[in-house]
Amino acid sequence: MDYTISNRMSALRGSAIREIFKYAADPAVISLAGGNPNPELFPNEALSDIAAEILREQPVTALQYGITEGYMPLRQAIRERLARVENIGTENDDLIVVSGGQQGIELATKCLVNEGDTVIVELPSFIGATNAFRSYGAHLVGVPVQNDGMDLDALERALAENNNVRFIYTIPTFQNPMGVTMSIEKRKKLYEIAKKNGVLILEDNPYGELTFNGVKTPTIKSMDTDGIVMYSGSFSKILAPGLRLGFMCAPRPIIQKMVIAKQVSDVHTPMLPQLLATEYMKRYDLDALILKMRENYAHKCKTMLDAMEQYFPSDVIYTRPGGGLFIWCDLGHGLDTFALSKKAIEQKVVYVPGNTFMVDMDQPTSTLRLNYSTMSDEKIVEGIRRLGVVFGEALK
Amino acid sequence: MDYTISNRMSALRGSAIREIFKYAADPAVISLAGGNPNPELFPNEALSDIAAEILREQPVTALQYGITEGYMPLRQAIRERLARVENIGTENDDLIVVSGGQQGIELATKCLVNEGDTVIVELPSFIGATNAFRSYGAHLVGVPVQNDGMDLDALERALAENNNVRFIYTIPTFQNPMGVTMSIEKRKKLYEIAKKNGVLILEDNPYGELTFNGVKTPTIKSMDTDGIVMYSGSFSKILAPGLRLGFMCAPRPIIQKMVIAKQVSDVHTPMLPQLLATEYMKRYDLDALILKMRENYAHKCKTMLDAMEQYFPSDVIYTRPGGGLFIWCDLGHGLDTFALSKKAIEQKVVYVPGNTFMVDMDQPTSTLRLNYSTMSDEKIVEGIRRLGVVFGEALK
Repeated sequence: MDYTISNRMSALRGSAIREIFKYAADPAVISLAGGNPNPELFPNEALSDIAAEILREQPVTALQYGITEGYMPLRQAIRERLARVENIGTENDDLIVVSGGQQGIELATKCLVNEGDTVIVELPSFIGATNAFRSYGAHLVGVPVQNDGMDLDALERALAENNNVRFIYTIPTFQNPMGVTMSIEKRKKLYEIAKKNGVLILEDNPYGELTFNGVKTPTIKSMDTDGIVMYSGSFSKILAPGLRLGFMCAPRPIIQKMVIAKQVSDVHTPMLPQLLATEYMKRYDLDALILKMRENYAHKCKTMLDAMEQYFPSDVIYTRPGGGLFIWCDLGHGLDTFALSKKAIEQKVVYVPGNTFMVDMDQPTSTLRLNYSTMSDEKIVEGIRRLGVVFGEALK
Repeated sequence: MDYTISNRMSALRGSAIREIFKYAADPAVISLAGGNPNPELFPNEALSDIAAEILREQPVTALQYGITEGYMPLRQAIRERLARVENIGTENDDLIVVSGGQQGIELATKCLVNEGDTVIVELPSFIGATNAFRSYGAHLVGVPVQNDGMDLDALERALAENNNVRFIYTIPTFQNPMGVTMSIEKRKKLYEIAKKNGVLILEDNPYGELTFNGVKTPTIKSMDTDGIVMYSGSFSKILAPGLRLGFMCAPRPIIQKMVIAKQVSDVHTPMLPQLLATEYMKRYDLDALILKMRENYAHKCKTMLDAMEQYFPSDVIYTRPGGGLFIWCDLGHGLDTFALSKKAIEQKVVYVPGNTFMVDMDQPTSTLRLNYSTMSDEKIVEGIRRLGVVFGEALK
């Protein structure tokens, strides 16, 4: 029997990160690879109470089919939160609840990108997004990320050199995988460049709330007077990822088409996670929970950076994030961090090699991503110590 | 700004059924349009107890990221149930948990169908599936359904006349929208035809367990010694649709690619619904719940058929289902049931016009679908009485 896979999917490989999870499942392994939130911060007692009550008292809402756009009170709560916290939302915008931020990105791509159309991405960028673009045959063009965000000269060249650019994909705040944040000046300029070129922006902001010092850089969407920004948000990093809850706020014609795409994708997002998030926001203080996360991740990030200072060879370069979940390292010296990851695994430490986040994943790189949100302080320090040995050997 | 929609999505309209839901939201309206299970049969007390316990005692499993293939104990429970109840599963098969049966169909299409490839569908067929095929630019070819299932002569002609047929989509048991069941003889012959032509079968079986008299026709997948059948199953009609839980059991190379497609679609199905289904099957008697559903739907179906006998004009033709959720009517006489649905809505009754389920949805038909699972007995009888008046007027 002929199991020939479609053109759009035939070349797509699974995410290396999720492959690495196989090693990470071994409790003896120190995983600095994933992007999992600290499970100690899940408000599970509150969610337990809410779930029990909802299933008993609103069984039809919780268990019957719902509408594709999302549970109305949740959409309303998200709209209010976006307006209050991010200054987002105009009368030309609409909002759809999706099954995690990933789904918003996938549906937007399905609705906007023909095979061969160009999507501009940051270099490096989030593999979940780049793989979603690849899965619809998009032509990916990478624009390097600097310490203050995208290289906008490179972006203008990319726009000049490529036809049918449908959108620019960016994670401007606490970028995955680099941990850096785009400056306000660059955000304004990026917006103007996109507008001038008639190109949409897909702003992905799953980490924006996780600012260590409480300072927040304005979202690009908050500047969107022309209806050119699609904003992707998520509850994964501020409540719990296993709920698979996200949302997209974008110009109405795009959301309307995404609703149809979602209808054929999974009809609607499961009701119970939607009800849990709605009631949690109503009855508890989500901002207070986020504050705890900020403090926890700030501490863990500092723990990792201090250990890196102590144990890493002195010429390893790395970012110093102001929030989010990731630190980006460059070992330099033409090292191949993918090859080196096998040596790290021998020492029972895993990280994500930088090539994973590139447009050309076959090209070796000397970069890698480290996560500090999942492991205990002790394991962070021990993991970095072991990596220091591996990297020291390699750099000898 | 240019919001041009991709070619694959530009022509796709929302499901008429879900548009009709807008009328159905009015409590004064009798909806015979949807396919909602009877909410009185949801085991909400049991699910409430389980949810409370899981979130308290297994918060990391319930709230952290999970694996794309699905929660392992649920996959195991589904495999065991499929083997026991449907005689399904070989060593060459694999199984993925998806967010409702709809997602399995969408992901299989994404992985197997190039734009312009042919998918053969039953005429009439489930619009959720046909729209999923359309959303990847599939060329749909319809094969009429008879009282004992697909017209296999028409199927052979369709296979002879069309290139690049990737699969045959069928709901062989209690078909949506017709309520009819494919005979064993036709199942065997369909299997042989597909095998001879090197074409896969996508067997969609959300209603198979809802047999009124307990008799079950063997699934096509149970005959699959050659690895040519993809089997789509769902918890929507045997537990609760708001959980959005389904699964696909298919040859391993297809499932492996679907896992990658699901990774970019929504990473994984939400954990809480997966844990609820797993624990419900472990602690309670799902077969006993299904038995209650069978009895309830058998009663409701008979209530509707009796009312149709009493109130419908005598030359209206309709199916007499042995299970499932739907009755299919043909008013004949060149009537257009889409136009007529406006008159029904004036009488505060909604049904789904037959054109919704066709390959060419713009062609008027004299057919329509009725659902008996959602409304009370009284509303079923009153709804049919009102439709009898509308149809009687039209047929005068």
